[in-house]
Amino acid sequence: MRSIDINCDMGESFGAYQMGNDPAILPYISSANIACGFHAGDAHVMRITVEQALLNNVSIGAHPGLPDLQGFGRRALEISPQEAFDYTVYQVGAMQAIAKSCGAVVKHVKAHGALYNMAARNEELADAIVRAVKSCDEQLVIVGLAGSDWIRAAEKQGMKYAQEVFADRRYEADGNLTPRSHPDALITDTNEALEHVERMVVEGIVKTRLGERLPIQADTICIHGDGEHAVEFAEALNSRFKQLEIVVRHF
Amino acid sequence: MRSIDINCDMGESFGAYQMGNDPAILPYISSANIACGFHAGDAHVMRITVEQALLNNVSIGAHPGLPDLQGFGRRALEISPQEAFDYTVYQVGAMQAIAKSCGAVVKHVKAHGALYNMAARNEELADAIVRAVKSCDEQLVIVGLAGSDWIRAAEKQGMKYAQEVFADRRYEADGNLTPRSHPDALITDTNEALEHVERMVVEGIVKTRLGERLPIQADTICIHGDGEHAVEFAEALNSRFKQLEIVVRHF
Amino acid sequence: MRSIDINCDMGESFGAYQMGNDPAILPYISSANIACGFHAGDAHVMRITVEQALLNNVSIGAHPGLPDLQGFGRRALEISPQEAFDYTVYQVGAMQAIAKSCGAVVKHVKAHGALYNMAARNEELADAIVRAVKSCDEQLVIVGLAGSDWIRAAEKQGMKYAQEVFADRRYEADGNLTPRSHPDALITDTNEALEHVERMVVEGIVKTRLGERLPIQADTICIHGDGEHAVEFAEALNSRFKQLEIVVRHF
Amino acid sequence: MRSIDINCDMGESFGAYQMGNDPAILPYISSANIACGFHAGDAHVMRITVEQALLNNVSIGAHPGLPDLQGFGRRALEISPQEAFDYTVYQVGAMQAIAKSCGAVVKHVKAHGALYNMAARNEELADAIVRAVKSCDEQLVIVGLAGSDWIRAAEKQGMKYAQEVFADRRYEADGNLTPRSHPDALITDTNEALEHVERMVVEGIVKTRLGERLPIQADTICIHGDGEHAVEFAEALNSRFKQLEIVVRHF
Repeated sequence: MRSIDINCDMGESFGAYQMGNDPAILPYISSANIACGFHAGDAHVMRITVEQALLNNVSIGAHPGLPDLQGFGRRALEISPQEAFDYTVYQVGAMQAIAKSCGAVVKHVKAHGALYNMAARNEELADAIVRAVKSCDEQLVIVGLAGSDWIRAAEKQGMKYAQEVFADRRYEADGNLTPRSHPDALITDTNEALEHVERMVVEGIVKTRLGERLPIQADTICIHGDGEHAVEFAEALNSRFKQLEIVVRHF
Repeated sequence: MRSIDINCDMGESFGAYQMGNDPAILPYISSANIACGFHAGDAHVMRITVEQALLNNVSIGAHPGLPDLQGFGRRALEISPQEAFDYTVYQVGAMQAIAKSCGAVVKHVKAHGALYNMAARNEELADAIVRAVKSCDEQLVIVGLAGSDWIRAAEKQGMKYAQEVFADRRYEADGNLTPRSHPDALITDTNEALEHVERMVVEGIVKTRLGERLPIQADTICIHGDGEHAVEFAEALNSRFKQLEIVVRHF
Repeated sequence: MRSIDINCDMGESFGAYQMGNDPAILPYISSANIACGFHAGDAHVMRITVEQALLNNVSIGAHPGLPDLQGFGRRALEISPQEAFDYTVYQVGAMQAIAKSCGAVVKHVKAHGALYNMAARNEELADAIVRAVKSCDEQLVIVGLAGSDWIRAAEKQGMKYAQEVFADRRYEADGNLTPRSHPDALITDTNEALEHVERMVVEGIVKTRLGERLPIQADTICIHGDGEHAVEFAEALNSRFKQLEIVVRHF
Repeated sequence: MRSIDINCDMGESFGAYQMGNDPAILPYISSANIACGFHAGDAHVMRITVEQALLNNVSIGAHPGLPDLQGFGRRALEISPQEAFDYTVYQVGAMQAIAKSCGAVVKHVKAHGALYNMAARNEELADAIVRAVKSCDEQLVIVGLAGSDWIRAAEKQGMKYAQEVFADRRYEADGNLTPRSHPDALITDTNEALEHVERMVVEGIVKTRLGERLPIQADTICIHGDGEHAVEFAEALNSRFKQLEIVVRHF
């Protein structure tokens, strides 16, 4: 039976600030990318989130980001590969220890926001981050944009990887995501998003914003937890996979 | 042959800010307490410092502190035992991963500044931090103020510990350090400091500020790296131990 | 016709993090205490909040706090009077400039959370903060706990002040608020809270947790904006004052 | 008699971290650009620095930067013009209040590091920052790279400005500074730097890295305070101006 992974960013609260609705989304995903205290999250939120993921039998991942809480890690920051390496080791290590203190193990790493986007098209940066992850644990799975420098960097380092596709984002002809600044960046219609996912997972094809059909490898699907209809969409996506006889489980 | 450990806080630089003179002090110590990014240090400084410690064959420790860079972790902050637990796991985990990426292993944990002082006389806090350390690695050695709640907490959790004495600090009749706010808190005369250390290490006695003689267990001696005469004192202390035929090495 | 001020903490969002429901509360208050970026808020949130206050004809105040975003300024931090002075000038100045850029003027200053509580019973700290406010603008009104060191400090410096009472907090026999850690700290019943306020405003009496009746001066009433029933309570409080023919307006 | 301004970045210490040698440089400059707590500096350091500037009769300026203490404001961060506006108002306002509390007035504003460089070639960003400064005080002088978007933005808003040249930096044919990453970015020879300054101030000409001669307007000269020979160079520059009968004073 075929299987697919669904991942979602989690643990983005900070101190007294609540973000997202983790407990409501967790039943519908197989991998949680847990923020590590740079762009979001803090030591306490990380622990709570690991505990919730364990309760839902969801696989635990580290979600390192840029040191920019005020910008939620979404603003490009001109860091060197060495800085990217050091920031990643630090954050993944913190996450590993917190997971261990809860009796769990970190299984994957996915970079957040601007760090993810920068490295997707900057092989030197992707290499540095993948080497950092490898230095933490050689068994960790790199989650990166399908077809991007993330995948090349993981292959080069002999690390396992999962090619990621986005349920609610449009793609350009070069395989990159349509930038969020573009009015058509997001797929807001549920049915369109479900078809978009099905096409990628079942056919291995993504239809771009302008209609081209590109081959794509989909090992894991990123959904978002903070939209108004996030839970409904997560539920619909799970139902669709059930119909298609595709099991949702960690890669 | 008898042995003693000398420890010193290290890796307290941050970004463009330099602090201390680690390379000059490292030849004279056996254990480095490396700041973990909360009260001082950052991911990059941590890595550099681990590399320097390795070159000097100095044992590596994590030095977690309060989340107060502006106050250098020296200002008491009203945190709960749970917060202390979470902050410690996070910081020790980050340090462990950075050490691992350099081919090293963290061997001990010593809390910094106000966190160290608060827990020395607050068993609930000391317990939480010791449990946090244990959850990271049961082999880690707890470094704590000789005779304080640190030692009781470590014993209770079955963790190894090293009782710490201070080369340049005076003591009160209750075994606590004379607070820094007191004009006589510091021993500034080198000879007096050397005698003070010798008395603690060889005789197992500390002479308090007012002249009482208290029994004390000295497993490790804390020296400071940032004073004007820090290097000279470190050198003198090593010479004295050589004369006394006491080997300086990690506990 | 008698008048009373109602104040509420505002502008506590930070970056991508939303907190409170300012637009819904603003119609029911006369003074907004706007966070200044240390314990909550940021430059952008401050500007948005000033604009919203102006639209609602609500008077603008600075709400300086401790530099502890992670703890939301609620954890006591051992700062010196000089640090309190400097932190206050900085935050009030930032607020003044942002208000000015919106065509508004800061009219009052109220410290936040642990800073407010610490200074209420530490005259040296209260003095330092009041002097800081005075150095920014001698016309600023100090908002402080009725009968506390805030009031004495303001009188000493010749600054105007507003004695503050809390709609949903119980009081001890010494005039202090029942600490939040006490199970009966909060008044959760709306009618009880309305009577509690009416007694303070109309009779000048507060009934303590244990039933004593103490004289109290109520110039401004603090309500909270983030509870579930915050808007309803704000509305009910306004209605009650209308019945009592007391105008809600800035002191 | 002709006059020229010499400016230097000041107040870059933070908490326990010392940076630069402000008291040694202050006798040789006429304008201090004081860090405002985002990329460097804190409320306490700002106050101390204002006091030192006053003692040396040096004019006080605000030196706002990007919110990146770890990178010392030197790493480009992708902020919007609105964010630049808000960050600038906040920082300049904080500086104004601290200056006022010392009996001083902020006279100029110069952006720091990456913010300065980004806006020098991004008119929208320069416009936003200049409007922010204007909203704080219409009399403030904008200090910006000679011939850059800073100058155009100041002219457009009707704000006074000072065109800045750098004593120890080489220039490209387009009038921009040679990037620091280039091996020839810095002029390290004192005599060459003095001639470079004299050529710009007296002849109105800058000789580029490749030898072209470009017209340049020099109203203020930036020197650096943190190099090994910073004080000697400042002294030599003052002597040279004395020989040339050019008075060093605030624009």
